[in-house]
Amino acid sequence: MKVLKTPHGELKTPFFMPIATKGAVKTLSSFDIERLGSPIILSNTYHLYLRPGMDVIKHFGGLHKFMDWDGALLTDSGGYQVFSLAKIRKLTEEGVKFASHIDGSRHLLTPELSIEIQQTLGSDIVMVLDECTPPDMSLTDLKKSVERTTRWAERSKAAFEKGRDASNNFGAQLFGIVQGGTDIDLRIKHAQDLMKIGFDGYAIGGLSVGEPFEQALEVIKALDEVLPKDKPRYFMGGGKPDEIVAYVKNGIDMFDCVIPTRNARHGLIYRFVHDDLSKPDFFESIHITNEKWKFDEATLAYPNDDDPISKELSRYSYAYLRHLFTVEEVLGQRLATLMNLKFYLGLMERLRS
Amino acid sequence: MKVLKTPHGELKTPFFMPIATKGAVKTLSSFDIERLGSPIILSNTYHLYLRPGMDVIKHFGGLHKFMDWDGALLTDSGGYQVFSLAKIRKLTEEGVKFASHIDGSRHLLTPELSIEIQQTLGSDIVMVLDECTPPDMSLTDLKKSVERTTRWAERSKAAFEKGRDASNNFGAQLFGIVQGGTDIDLRIKHAQDLMKIGFDGYAIGGLSVGEPFEQALEVIKALDEVLPKDKPRYFMGGGKPDEIVAYVKNGIDMFDCVIPTRNARHGLIYRFVHDDLSKPDFFESIHITNEKWKFDEATLAYPNDDDPISKELSRYSYAYLRHLFTVEEVLGQRLATLMNLKFYLGLMERLRS
Repeated sequence: MKVLKTPHGELKTPFFMPIATKGAVKTLSSFDIERLGSPIILSNTYHLYLRPGMDVIKHFGGLHKFMDWDGALLTDSGGYQVFSLAKIRKLTEEGVKFASHIDGSRHLLTPELSIEIQQTLGSDIVMVLDECTPPDMSLTDLKKSVERTTRWAERSKAAFEKGRDASNNFGAQLFGIVQGGTDIDLRIKHAQDLMKIGFDGYAIGGLSVGEPFEQALEVIKALDEVLPKDKPRYFMGGGKPDEIVAYVKNGIDMFDCVIPTRNARHGLIYRFVHDDLSKPDFFESIHITNEKWKFDEATLAYPNDDDPISKELSRYSYAYLRHLFTVEEVLGQRLATLMNLKFYLGLMERLRS
Repeated sequence: MKVLKTPHGELKTPFFMPIATKGAVKTLSSFDIERLGSPIILSNTYHLYLRPGMDVIKHFGGLHKFMDWDGALLTDSGGYQVFSLAKIRKLTEEGVKFASHIDGSRHLLTPELSIEIQQTLGSDIVMVLDECTPPDMSLTDLKKSVERTTRWAERSKAAFEKGRDASNNFGAQLFGIVQGGTDIDLRIKHAQDLMKIGFDGYAIGGLSVGEPFEQALEVIKALDEVLPKDKPRYFMGGGKPDEIVAYVKNGIDMFDCVIPTRNARHGLIYRFVHDDLSKPDFFESIHITNEKWKFDEATLAYPNDDDPISKELSRYSYAYLRHLFTVEEVLGQRLATLMNLKFYLGLMERLRS
């Protein structure tokens, strides 16, 4: 088991990062995340750069203080959101020009600016800016893109080191991001190029974007042979519970995914069926709005769990949660979010032991 | 100071009841209400009758167990919602026929059914079914309506006593509701008629429906002379903080109002300016989305308050709350709801001492 040392705590791997996109895990406060026992959250550079803006974040001395979070914080580079959310964007060697999805204002996100924002946020784990390639890109274009991502990674590292002393969080780590689509050779080549630059950890980007799971797993298996054994590896944006088990078996240490929180808000609840994670049916997902739960008295907590969140969840029944979703009470989304994060964090705990 | 004894605790007057319309105070759990220190909540017969329905409530043995709330519970009769929400309605001596605003299903709400539902819910304070009259009703029609409300009150009391043994909450109280619009003579006459029937407490309905505050206060002052001094008086549906102070001065013991919770969800925050409640500027309401709060470091709790909710609120700044509203994070609505309920409950505490 690897242990990541950050200025905001030591993180035992493998771990899962709840997503606090805009400085809050949806429906939850930092107090709730503490009670859940998650040692780390992930926040989004693109969103926080636009709102509240860096003037506010600077005034508070970083995102930790702004949202009163004392655990570790990983921030993405903003690249993924620029490529998926921004209205207009133009990619050049310098960076990516985009128009805000909120007010249409024009911005230029460069590797240097992304690092500067993340250092202002006071991130514990900073990500380099990479180009997020569409799944249907030709191999020629993909190669060119990956080469640019390598050059951006070099610039990111230089900017990271230059800005370190003035940052809101001395002692932060910088992670490179391996791209290359589902082309194994390109993936390996890119990993090697990034390792030459040298990073504190290596993320695998551009997966969990619609490709079959088996294809993603092949990439992960190939990279398991190449990436340094002593550095953490971060699978970006995935995945389902059984996929996470498979990725961990193949060397992945870190995950972030909207699945537990987004699905919770739609009433889809994950729960353990049995303890044998080697069998794919160790979990199930249920639709809480189903008639089946109308009279169900079972509590929302796992038996024997007595952490603060479980104590709260143990007060309410599946029938009550179903009712809250049926009448569209936000409390339902909140309780379901707590349940699914308990499940994902519990899954990681089982995988660690 | 009057003390109301209920099967779920003793209630010191005056008190304010947070509204748990559909079995939850919006964005909050019963655990949150406990931490807020409210000894009572109000729930809505009409909503709970339609969803989850009495089969579910019966299965759980009442609303207390369904939502795991161990404090006192007041339920309205469902009349107000039938008159304001239901699609079609037809009033007869027997009761009011209506079509559900959810699925159009037809129902007949009688005084007897209203009491039966409330006894199934396990209400601690049961309200009689009354006719909610529109503000523009002629005096002749108003008189006829009030007379019917008296007859319904008689039927409600008979049904209440008949159902008591089989109810989910032996020891509950039954309140009459004084109607009569803004006609003082009619109000007094109705109060006297209800007192002849005899109730555990008296509510004043049909106010806070758009009439000027001075007119409502005149009704309250007139009824203060008539209603028994030793029975609790409940002003239904109001009001603003300064109005509550005036009503308490004129003999009112109990309040419920959507103002603190609904306004919270729109980012309107109530807070104390000074301690002298005799001056109408003792409080202010602020719009948290205002640019003014963008950099504001003040915490969301009052200095020196150290109850569990204040401890949680003290972690977050006005600037953070503003950000949550700006980016439409539900957590903002939740924190604002906690703040406004803290304010209303704090106001009642000051009025008691």
